[in-house]
Amino acid sequence: MTMTAVPRSADLNALLDEHARLRAELLDAGHLIDTGVEGVYGHGADFSAVCRAVDALVGRVIHEVHGGAATVLAFPPVMPREILDRTDYIASFPHLSATVATYEGGDAEHRLMLAGRDAGHDWGGHLRSSDLALVPSACHPVYPTLSGALPRDGAWVDVSGHCFRHEPSSDPMRMQSFRMREIVRVGTDRAAIAHRDSWVARAAGILGDLGLRVSQAPAVDPFFGRSGRMLAANQSADGLKTEVLVNVYGERFPGVAVASGNYHRDHFGMQFDITSADGSPAHSACLGFGIERIALALFAAHGMDRASWPGAVNARL
Amino acid sequence: MTMTAVPRSADLNALLDEHARLRAELLDAGHLIDTGVEGVYGHGADFSAVCRAVDALVGRVIHEVHGGAATVLAFPPVMPREILDRTDYIASFPHLSATVATYEGGDAEHRLMLAGRDAGHDWGGHLRSSDLALVPSACHPVYPTLSGALPRDGAWVDVSGHCFRHEPSSDPMRMQSFRMREIVRVGTDRAAIAHRDSWVARAAGILGDLGLRVSQAPAVDPFFGRSGRMLAANQSADGLKTEVLVNVYGERFPGVAVASGNYHRDHFGMQFDITSADGSPAHSACLGFGIERIALALFAAHGMDRASWPGAVNARL
Repeated sequence: MTMTAVPRSADLNALLDEHARLRAELLDAGHLIDTGVEGVYGHGADFSAVCRAVDALVGRVIHEVHGGAATVLAFPPVMPREILDRTDYIASFPHLSATVATYEGGDAEHRLMLAGRDAGHDWGGHLRSSDLALVPSACHPVYPTLSGALPRDGAWVDVSGHCFRHEPSSDPMRMQSFRMREIVRVGTDRAAIAHRDSWVARAAGILGDLGLRVSQAPAVDPFFGRSGRMLAANQSADGLKTEVLVNVYGERFPGVAVASGNYHRDHFGMQFDITSADGSPAHSACLGFGIERIALALFAAHGMDRASWPGAVNARL
Repeated sequence: MTMTAVPRSADLNALLDEHARLRAELLDAGHLIDTGVEGVYGHGADFSAVCRAVDALVGRVIHEVHGGAATVLAFPPVMPREILDRTDYIASFPHLSATVATYEGGDAEHRLMLAGRDAGHDWGGHLRSSDLALVPSACHPVYPTLSGALPRDGAWVDVSGHCFRHEPSSDPMRMQSFRMREIVRVGTDRAAIAHRDSWVARAAGILGDLGLRVSQAPAVDPFFGRSGRMLAANQSADGLKTEVLVNVYGERFPGVAVASGNYHRDHFGMQFDITSADGSPAHSACLGFGIERIALALFAAHGMDRASWPGAVNARL
């Protein structure tokens, strides 16, 4: 989620050791189950319960703050592929993108595919990108549902979903498949910026109350390739992204983003024809909580046995 | 999930009308949100709440029956692609299978992809099947975790996950992306068959207690192509699959499967090197609950406004 300064080589090795140590502890405790693919894990009962509790806590705060004004939505892990186009995700983050590939051939090609497979060839080429993609951010499927004129005060959406980003990593904090809960604001530029800023502060408060060592920092997304450098520079110069970080691997290493606040200007408003009361393209902002990352940060901070966590932390969850 | 006798044409039209009617009611009530792709829906707050309640009810029954003997696991919506091979899913159900396609090219190909896109060409071919696939059945990622010798009594696993099957349909009961909760038994042939049969009966009981009109029937999976006919005939002759069906569209139409019990013989035991205490390949069986299907059946039976459902039903959820 964040581009941090690259540590020097000795530091990098020490950081990789920290990743391996935490990963081993989580696997030993049965919180994560190795699947053989980096960043894709099964979840044990206690880990699932903490994820559910974190999600419920976030939901309670959203409800306290916005009450019935926030529309509660959930989306499945897949969405129409054209959303990757309209959000420009495939243009800005092709390396993280994923489509759903399916088989549209007949009997004859199927026999060929299986014969090839028996001869040791990869059969993946027989499947091709369908009209579906994996959801990269929980809020992306929301914008098409808002097309048209917004109410006078704009809209708030509380949205949950599984996200996928193709970034295999040995760092257990960086999963390829993970859940995100976001509180989205669509309306004027002022409303969007105020939403992001108040929710960044609120997220830092929620996480601090869970006994995590929290900080905030401006951040940029990992845009792809040469042209991406300019996009990242613009995002940074305009202060569009702020991350809430937790110190997971010790003071000498950068914190890990567990929540992220983004102001999109009128990007989604333009792309999805969402208009403010005055007829101009709506601005939007969101604050996303990384559910697994928060759960992992809690186990890293308070130990692998939830029963031994501080009472004040368990009382909040 | 089931191959039912194909109704005659007038009946088929009447059934399609029923699909359209239920779908419109669910969309109007905000329980489902149209995404533009058949079988892929967003979920409204009440629908999500019913899904959660159904899942929790199933979890309570599993806990009552098996207590601490059942290992509770959850898996993300993606799994190593090689599991599609080892389960034979890609051989038997290529038309339902899906891999995760990702972009592995560099800057130059990316520029080409975007130029093609701007000229109106499909960019999907620039992404290729990765080492990940979408999970077709919640229990499939479980078997690799059981490789090796089982305890003397075998194993029980309570597993949850999002599943994907590429079968776009205008029937709201047939989603492409949906959640499944399964109770899996691995051990002797006798233990596996007894598990399937007792859980089919228990599932029918749970659903009947929710005011649904339930039946049970032997069933076969929708195997692909010509060779699939023989596989289906064998599955049917050996009575491997039993479905729990709910009458959703009226008495003149077949029921819709909302839970399914399957005995796999030693198929997964062989493929994943799971051995019983006596050293022979383990047998397995599972009972899967289709969470969205059960929730949809409840709205279809009791009405779109949950507050007006029978008190006895709401009390159980």
